[in-house]
Amino acid sequence: MNSFEKLNKSYANYKNTLCIGLDPDYHKLPAGFPQTPSGLYDFLIEIINATQDLAVSYKINFAFYEVFGSKGIEVIEKIIPKISQDKFLIADVKRSDIGNSSKFYAAAVYDNLPFDAATLNPLMGMDSLEEFFNYSNKLNFVLALTSNPGAKDFLYNMNFYPTLFREIIRKFTENYSEENLGFVVGATKPEYAINARLLAPKYTFLIPGIGAQGGDLEQLRKANIMPALFNVSRDIIFPDNSGDYFEAVRNKALEYSQLLAI
Amino acid sequence: MNSFEKLNKSYANYKNTLCIGLDPDYHKLPAGFPQTPSGLYDFLIEIINATQDLAVSYKINFAFYEVFGSKGIEVIEKIIPKISQDKFLIADVKRSDIGNSSKFYAAAVYDNLPFDAATLNPLMGMDSLEEFFNYSNKLNFVLALTSNPGAKDFLYNMNFYPTLFREIIRKFTENYSEENLGFVVGATKPEYAINARLLAPKYTFLIPGIGAQGGDLEQLRKANIMPALFNVSRDIIFPDNSGDYFEAVRNKALEYSQLLAI
Repeated sequence: MNSFEKLNKSYANYKNTLCIGLDPDYHKLPAGFPQTPSGLYDFLIEIINATQDLAVSYKINFAFYEVFGSKGIEVIEKIIPKISQDKFLIADVKRSDIGNSSKFYAAAVYDNLPFDAATLNPLMGMDSLEEFFNYSNKLNFVLALTSNPGAKDFLYNMNFYPTLFREIIRKFTENYSEENLGFVVGATKPEYAINARLLAPKYTFLIPGIGAQGGDLEQLRKANIMPALFNVSRDIIFPDNSGDYFEAVRNKALEYSQLLAI
Repeated sequence: MNSFEKLNKSYANYKNTLCIGLDPDYHKLPAGFPQTPSGLYDFLIEIINATQDLAVSYKINFAFYEVFGSKGIEVIEKIIPKISQDKFLIADVKRSDIGNSSKFYAAAVYDNLPFDAATLNPLMGMDSLEEFFNYSNKLNFVLALTSNPGAKDFLYNMNFYPTLFREIIRKFTENYSEENLGFVVGATKPEYAINARLLAPKYTFLIPGIGAQGGDLEQLRKANIMPALFNVSRDIIFPDNSGDYFEAVRNKALEYSQLLAI
């Protein structure tokens, strides 16, 4: 079973399109969890236990771990075996480099670790991501439209014709099938997300930006944005709450899983 | 002393512009060095001992370490204290992410590790790299023109007007001074490198692509490409040789330090 099939099986099992971002800003850990790699680990185990039956996927953004150096990467290595194997696991690394180096970045997430998918930055060109696509059983999410305001500087800068995000989608869809390729498409600019969908009808979109970043889910759903995986991070793992912390986490995850039901 | 001043002092001390890339493809380690993190560490210590008095700078491409997971990052943590503190140390990470995550990527190389500079991918826009530029004492090298053939897909794709690399240079130079900003500009397309220089006369260029990748150094020198730091990786750390391995490494480094004399 390749990653694409695993994702589709997971959709069918859980009947939603929720991906939970395990993006643990250590400054925000709740009381009782020290701001250290081991505090991070304990916190994540609780998050996983509280949400595992509710989501299709977990996305691990490496930035929040790399800040602790090797000890942080060790946390990633230790939590992965605690996650049920049917979860679609995304390495949110946004890596970019040329051939020789790119090969090792790919091996880091696909051989040394058992990720099903990774997020990749296409700026350096098609050849820079080839080593990731050589893993034909994996799903590679290429950044097309990101959810930050600065995406307008280059990705949807209308002074460029054709717009950069359109050219990225065109070039990659020409070369790779939907079993091997998906796109990161932010929810904060629904009009462009819908445009991206028209350019790549069958490809899976990994959609960050709903929840804390304010993306408009309703508009995206009306526009038939599927197939898509919606990532929610802060809103679930750092909920506003006054009662039991991980009960609040579970309630938030439940709320999103219902909102994202299929 | 900020990174920019440190670099300039290093130029004056060593009288060359050589940066040695510590990019140890573990498959290529010479006999006697196992293809493991500890083999990597022992190899790098020998490389550093053989070259330390010859180069201005070392650049560490994280891909070659991340392939070993936390144990690989530990190698980076362990070799840095073995490098003389006057070396200009570059984290070749080509990172890119939005605010919250970007902050932790920056802390990973500038707080948790003592790098003087980092390479960064600007695709996601100006705000995505702001957290790196908030370290006003560090030199951030933004990818502008990379040395791989695929750079033509987006960075110097002439269907875009203005060309993407020109727009990247324009936006970043408008916002940051040469004490805080430099650019990665490959040697393999001298005509564009010269164009980049005209757009950013005072900014330091980190120039990969001479040596194994075949960049034309003479053409760049004639065009007054300075201030620039020239990176050589494979040609120095994996020399063709039949005699003593690290003597060959030293001879190659010496050769490049003379070629890049100032």
